[in-house]
Amino acid sequence: MTTATALTGVIPPVCTPLTPDFEVDTASLVRLVDHLMAGGVDGLFVLGSTSEAAFLPDGHRRVVLDTVVGHVAGQVPVLAGAIDMTTLRVLDHALAAVVAGVDGLVATAPFYARTHPAEIDLHFRTIAARTGVPLYAYDLPVSVHSKLPADLLLDLAADGVLAGLKDSSGDDAGLRNVLLGRRDRTGLDGFAVLTGSELTVDSALWMGADGVVPGLGNVDPHGYARLYRAARDGDWAAARTEQERLVRLFELIVVGRSRMGHGSSALGAFKAALYLRGVIAHPTTAVPQIPLDESEIAAVGKYLAAADLL
Amino acid sequence: MTTATALTGVIPPVCTPLTPDFEVDTASLVRLVDHLMAGGVDGLFVLGSTSEAAFLPDGHRRVVLDTVVGHVAGQVPVLAGAIDMTTLRVLDHALAAVVAGVDGLVATAPFYARTHPAEIDLHFRTIAARTGVPLYAYDLPVSVHSKLPADLLLDLAADGVLAGLKDSSGDDAGLRNVLLGRRDRTGLDGFAVLTGSELTVDSALWMGADGVVPGLGNVDPHGYARLYRAARDGDWAAARTEQERLVRLFELIVVGRSRMGHGSSALGAFKAALYLRGVIAHPTTAVPQIPLDESEIAAVGKYLAAADLL
Amino acid sequence: MTTATALTGVIPPVCTPLTPDFEVDTASLVRLVDHLMAGGVDGLFVLGSTSEAAFLPDGHRRVVLDTVVGHVAGQVPVLAGAIDMTTLRVLDHALAAVVAGVDGLVATAPFYARTHPAEIDLHFRTIAARTGVPLYAYDLPVSVHSKLPADLLLDLAADGVLAGLKDSSGDDAGLRNVLLGRRDRTGLDGFAVLTGSELTVDSALWMGADGVVPGLGNVDPHGYARLYRAARDGDWAAARTEQERLVRLFELIVVGRSRMGHGSSALGAFKAALYLRGVIAHPTTAVPQIPLDESEIAAVGKYLAAADLL
Amino acid sequence: MTTATALTGVIPPVCTPLTPDFEVDTASLVRLVDHLMAGGVDGLFVLGSTSEAAFLPDGHRRVVLDTVVGHVAGQVPVLAGAIDMTTLRVLDHALAAVVAGVDGLVATAPFYARTHPAEIDLHFRTIAARTGVPLYAYDLPVSVHSKLPADLLLDLAADGVLAGLKDSSGDDAGLRNVLLGRRDRTGLDGFAVLTGSELTVDSALWMGADGVVPGLGNVDPHGYARLYRAARDGDWAAARTEQERLVRLFELIVVGRSRMGHGSSALGAFKAALYLRGVIAHPTTAVPQIPLDESEIAAVGKYLAAADLL
Repeated sequence: MTTATALTGVIPPVCTPLTPDFEVDTASLVRLVDHLMAGGVDGLFVLGSTSEAAFLPDGHRRVVLDTVVGHVAGQVPVLAGAIDMTTLRVLDHALAAVVAGVDGLVATAPFYARTHPAEIDLHFRTIAARTGVPLYAYDLPVSVHSKLPADLLLDLAADGVLAGLKDSSGDDAGLRNVLLGRRDRTGLDGFAVLTGSELTVDSALWMGADGVVPGLGNVDPHGYARLYRAARDGDWAAARTEQERLVRLFELIVVGRSRMGHGSSALGAFKAALYLRGVIAHPTTAVPQIPLDESEIAAVGKYLAAADLL
Repeated sequence: MTTATALTGVIPPVCTPLTPDFEVDTASLVRLVDHLMAGGVDGLFVLGSTSEAAFLPDGHRRVVLDTVVGHVAGQVPVLAGAIDMTTLRVLDHALAAVVAGVDGLVATAPFYARTHPAEIDLHFRTIAARTGVPLYAYDLPVSVHSKLPADLLLDLAADGVLAGLKDSSGDDAGLRNVLLGRRDRTGLDGFAVLTGSELTVDSALWMGADGVVPGLGNVDPHGYARLYRAARDGDWAAARTEQERLVRLFELIVVGRSRMGHGSSALGAFKAALYLRGVIAHPTTAVPQIPLDESEIAAVGKYLAAADLL
Repeated sequence: MTTATALTGVIPPVCTPLTPDFEVDTASLVRLVDHLMAGGVDGLFVLGSTSEAAFLPDGHRRVVLDTVVGHVAGQVPVLAGAIDMTTLRVLDHALAAVVAGVDGLVATAPFYARTHPAEIDLHFRTIAARTGVPLYAYDLPVSVHSKLPADLLLDLAADGVLAGLKDSSGDDAGLRNVLLGRRDRTGLDGFAVLTGSELTVDSALWMGADGVVPGLGNVDPHGYARLYRAARDGDWAAARTEQERLVRLFELIVVGRSRMGHGSSALGAFKAALYLRGVIAHPTTAVPQIPLDESEIAAVGKYLAAADLL
Repeated sequence: MTTATALTGVIPPVCTPLTPDFEVDTASLVRLVDHLMAGGVDGLFVLGSTSEAAFLPDGHRRVVLDTVVGHVAGQVPVLAGAIDMTTLRVLDHALAAVVAGVDGLVATAPFYARTHPAEIDLHFRTIAARTGVPLYAYDLPVSVHSKLPADLLLDLAADGVLAGLKDSSGDDAGLRNVLLGRRDRTGLDGFAVLTGSELTVDSALWMGADGVVPGLGNVDPHGYARLYRAARDGDWAAARTEQERLVRLFELIVVGRSRMGHGSSALGAFKAALYLRGVIAHPTTAVPQIPLDESEIAAVGKYLAAADLL
């Protein structure tokens, strides 16, 4: 299911705006999609970790799929996460996404279950065989508690199982092994390698990555678009300057960290920023995440002001 | 939602028999329930980790609930796992189980998401508030990647949120802290403490635990029933002898370990044993678990023979 | 190097009293040894984790060895930890301890280095071959970051490499596998199995363990001696009552936990208790551990008062 | 103790050649130093992880210090690792290194002990206060099991405690936070930031790192020198090409991985390569590491041949 040409550019994981009672706020979601498209992104990734997919019931997930696929209407590719513990459960999400009309699927290795590499291999092969749209492997050890080995990924790519990788492992040496392995084997040109590490995008592109899936791209899509365009055009100094600006902006994720999970602190800050920027109606994150309080939301605003985003 | 009297005895996590194409084999499931009831168990726990809940799509889960609740027809309490990543997703499973008529719910702390204790607290409180049947906390760090602290559990028990604990952490010092904390606080008599560590049941009961949820109890329910009865009657030497026999039987879980995940090896061995004992029709475990091969199934048989279970 | 009869009873890991400028306070150390002997212990374990061996330079370690071996003068066996990263470094400590006249050595698996089981095996074999006193394996995953497998321990015991095990893993199912493996193989009667888990001593003895190495035994050696004697005499109810009292006393380790490492909090509390009981002159713990402050030391005192130890 | 100008360039961690009976092979060590100097390195780091410091007794460490400091005779700076569990033990190594005449010290956070950030802070402050040569923090979570936070490092730099960082965490987003924090604070120009990740040197230098401490630099110092010079001269394409060649060469570390620890496999391969290149007399690694066998050494040779290093 490898595509002819690899996916490239900025494909942000789209936050899922919620109402205060934890329903999907579709009006805000549409505005967020418009905000991202206006920012110049090259694709959208719904139902990923930054989308709070782990927190969304199936009904919510379907609303997100229908809303985004319908609103985007083919202007850019839409990838959908099929985040669940193991193969058959992932397949249920994957098939719902295919029915909704997505252009690609994103799945992690099994989690909760303790899994052998041979089982990870079978997991991706089974998903690919039963769906029929491009499948991207999602490497996120902080949540999945295993790391996808470069050789396993490249073998799956060579066999046409995987169309690409979203690497959120933070392990840029491992990313480089994938990138060089792709180059050294034949026939893997269509295998897309995307980094999910929003602080090292310039260097990942420098190493040969095709694009980026930045959570912070919800807050500042223009910034990531500028960064990507600069790198694509060979203006690496400009790319680095933009990246360094975004590194400083990213500090907003620490605002709530002392009294909540690291994920809640980051997701809460992204949503607070979108709320302060007028994109979404409520900064609500899904239960049981502790919400940022007023003073923490104000602190997020200071980062936005420093970045001229207010 | 604390019950008047704590749940006690042997409540095995019921394996989920599957057909070779990964559908629930309801005829085998009914036979397995009969096998367990004939073995003298005091309750049943469906859709737990040993039930491969992490591998079962929602449709499969509903079949299991309907089959078991219908067949048991109130003879013993039936608890159901509501195993999912976070609160709203857990609630969907929980409400389906309540509709099916279960007598209690079992939920872990959030996983995949990185969660703060305040968020774990809110998680259990939200589930309890929205369901209305006894809720049991499931402590399984090997899958959930966090440990439930004794104080958090006891506070939730004191507030009527939790009806009990299934402790599969393997941390018997922590178990003891819960047991003594329960005794030292007032009003917690109805809070059930069940161990999921099948190799230290006699000592857990000795410390004051109310019962056990043994995966191996699928294979030899009579053994765990004898062990529990002996302990209840104060014949600790007999309990220990029975326990030691079961420790040796438990070695069957290592048969496939060199070429699959530890979970697959254990679940595959339990199902192979049930297949060899004539209880279930197929030893199939859910994809992507590597199945035991013929020689490994035969090796499981040797453990059964040594235990006079063939 | 297996001894004819296994070591048994209460063998506390002896705290290392320090002066405020971090020198060994030998006068306090001698008083502590007397306090432990008066408490009825069966042996002493110096330079273990509770002794702050990880914090003590070689010079300090030698002072401890000479002081304790000299003062005990053969009344009870003295074991010494040879705590270091890998084989040759461990051997330097081991040989110094042998020269000082200890009765046994205690060593962990390699740490800092990432080690394969075949390398752990070679590690213990090399140490045993080059020393010539009984060698005890020390299983402490929280510090060493690997767990000693039961089969590896039993194979080393069968080959005469190991004289025993100090199991501080907290994994009582694993402990049971060692205990039953010892019983099921021939010739392993002299292999001592000691638990380092001070909250489950009664159950460890019930499973067949030979003794206990309790850090809390510094504070209340009489309590652990009573517990052990009761168990040895078959009065399990008395053993449990004593154990439960000690579980409650052990809570003193949480006093400083919010602002220091878990180890510092526990070691600081043990030393504060010994200071308050008049056994040692200073509650000093080795740099860089954060010391308990006055109010925290007073809080430790309340636990002692509740246990009638003041 | 911050130096006026930060350390820069290629500072390889010098392997420690051993005789077959595990003594330091000083003749080989001198040849290795010459090989590295001839390769164009800017400094030497002895007694680091790649030097097998964790495996070397104090006597061996002193021989290494004296041999290298004596032979180098001030031509390039020599840094020495003071690798041990906690502060006072580290100080013993540090003072021995100072006496031997090293130009800087390298120390990790405490390990084996479970340590709070306040204790890590005190650890580095105590070492710096009692030595008097530039102190470099060594971030190596795979061995130390904690990660040094950027803020802690920058605070210690601002207070003149740390002269630099050797970042072997593999976390290049964290590295970037340190680099930007150094730029955004005043007075930190002398704080050296060196990467220990040998596969992402070009990107680390691109982000602003001052140099690299590459284990693989033992095998191919010329390659890392070319990489560094190209980056320094702004020829980033040449730097990347050189880096990619070294990424492929680095694959030699997997040769023995299936039957030994990852560390042993890497260190064994480095030494096998140095042996095959005629630099050291024996490929021996310290006990208890499993040695590469003949066929594995031959396999290492193929990587060298492919890189024109034979």
